[in-house]
Amino acid sequence: MYKTPTLPTIIKASRTIYHYMQASPLRDYKILSDLIGADVWLKHENHNPTCAFKVRGGINCLSKMTDEQKKAGVYTASTGNHGQSIAFAARAFGVKATIYVPKVANQGKVEAMRSLGAEVLYFGDDFDVARDGALQASLDKGGVFVGPTDEVLIEGVASYGLEIMNDLPDVDVIIVPVGAGSGICGTSIVAKTINPKIKIIGVQSAQAPAQQLSWKNQEMIEAQMQTIAEGMATRVPFANTQKIMHDYVDDFLLVDDRQIIKATKTLIETTHNLIEEASAATFAAALQIKEQLQGKKVVLVMSGGNISMQNLAALFQD
Amino acid sequence: MYKTPTLPTIIKASRTIYHYMQASPLRDYKILSDLIGADVWLKHENHNPTCAFKVRGGINCLSKMTDEQKKAGVYTASTGNHGQSIAFAARAFGVKATIYVPKVANQGKVEAMRSLGAEVLYFGDDFDVARDGALQASLDKGGVFVGPTDEVLIEGVASYGLEIMNDLPDVDVIIVPVGAGSGICGTSIVAKTINPKIKIIGVQSAQAPAQQLSWKNQEMIEAQMQTIAEGMATRVPFANTQKIMHDYVDDFLLVDDRQIIKATKTLIETTHNLIEEASAATFAAALQIKEQLQGKKVVLVMSGGNISMQNLAALFQD
Repeated sequence: MYKTPTLPTIIKASRTIYHYMQASPLRDYKILSDLIGADVWLKHENHNPTCAFKVRGGINCLSKMTDEQKKAGVYTASTGNHGQSIAFAARAFGVKATIYVPKVANQGKVEAMRSLGAEVLYFGDDFDVARDGALQASLDKGGVFVGPTDEVLIEGVASYGLEIMNDLPDVDVIIVPVGAGSGICGTSIVAKTINPKIKIIGVQSAQAPAQQLSWKNQEMIEAQMQTIAEGMATRVPFANTQKIMHDYVDDFLLVDDRQIIKATKTLIETTHNLIEEASAATFAAALQIKEQLQGKKVVLVMSGGNISMQNLAALFQD
Repeated sequence: MYKTPTLPTIIKASRTIYHYMQASPLRDYKILSDLIGADVWLKHENHNPTCAFKVRGGINCLSKMTDEQKKAGVYTASTGNHGQSIAFAARAFGVKATIYVPKVANQGKVEAMRSLGAEVLYFGDDFDVARDGALQASLDKGGVFVGPTDEVLIEGVASYGLEIMNDLPDVDVIIVPVGAGSGICGTSIVAKTINPKIKIIGVQSAQAPAQQLSWKNQEMIEAQMQTIAEGMATRVPFANTQKIMHDYVDDFLLVDDRQIIKATKTLIETTHNLIEEASAATFAAALQIKEQLQGKKVVLVMSGGNISMQNLAALFQD
């Protein structure tokens, strides 16, 4: 439907997006900088409506639909943040949204989707099964299916990359958590177009490495998916984001869930923000490669703040 | 030093403030609206730098100092959020800040002040003793003492009131937690000047009612101070904010700490933001007077997000 976004199309999308939300803050934290030995900045996408970066993509997507498409309604599948994005945008544009979620979906995210007016259906054991259900329903009912890595979503979420470049034009390294990959694709297209020397590093959990393995081996590889970090819980890689990551991403790290959980606690304590595990994976990755980061300006993308209350409680039980 | 702020001086102050931070979001939450039976909006002052509304006052205060004053440095006392505000602003303006905190101060807030470069000294058992220490030190050392309710702070924090009026001009009720009182004074001056029909309601804890008792009885009354909500932990009322509250505040409620703790959990779960107890007192108050609020547009001021990690953990231990 859309081609790979470019800097001009991303700038244009950002103007639409700012009708519905404001830019998110980029903040430096001395405590984190001291722990890494670098100049560490957090991009607070958790401050967005729906508390996640994905809302930008949903707004861009719905804004480009025809009246006929809007009338037909949208169908999508989600482990949580993408669904909230579509639900938020559907409400803003007066469109009916139907969202398929796996049975294990984060309860807080499901409630948030419903409170935005979306119909939420539990379907299957993981994201990929739920996606098939949503696609089939859109075909049966004549609605518009939105896939989690549609280019129009990448174009929208890329607006946070623009904000990073505006606020910290001499950034050296940007570390981004990877689920479906729209965030890192959007960020890297913007950053590399403006300054090819900026290093873009992806992160996944060692307990759900499908995208990392596929990127590293340059072939589509399914893998186990056991991570606590549902924002990075991808079992089947995505072809279009793999292609963009192949072109623009410099490195792709795996961090263990135990390190992610520790990092989540550290970030919540330090920033007094709720931070979800996928976001904290960037800090765990920075700790893992701190020798490479010494003295550099490093942005860690806090992709979302929707940690489940169970997982939040568990952080404080040791 | 300064007179009571007015709408024009507040607008002017807000322009200075936006060089150092952006406006905070005002968001509606259907789950909270359903619980109250009103159209409930949260003013997310917890999204500010330092995660609290007070940062606006600190910026305004430091921006108005002479070069000589800046060179002499600032002294203040704080239970936490005011100190972070002064520390943040002092860093922004290159000024040395010395902050006296009571021995029971929230550890996370103390670390945050230090990480912003302030010198933090533990002094006395509560805020009022720490304040005397800071004042004496400023006299001994020739620095500038900043009191927690100085008019220049009220003028700065009032900028969030402007934002509420810009985003929701037909607001009916604004509920504000009261500590020293700068927040409610700033908000009420703005709201009442623009539309005298807007109802302004203050909240304190029943376990620390000094300001509420003083407002109600129109005399300065000290009271017990046993609340968990350090943002409202005032033992001795403040004359200048009492005067403004007398002129502009319509009602002043007390809520029990047990209700505040429940409300804190509800807000964290619903909004996926860290919310500190003083902020949550506004929601507890709204529940208490829900009959009065039916069908109205209600803004609850989330004054800050700096809940201590101990208190956060305790929320999930029942």
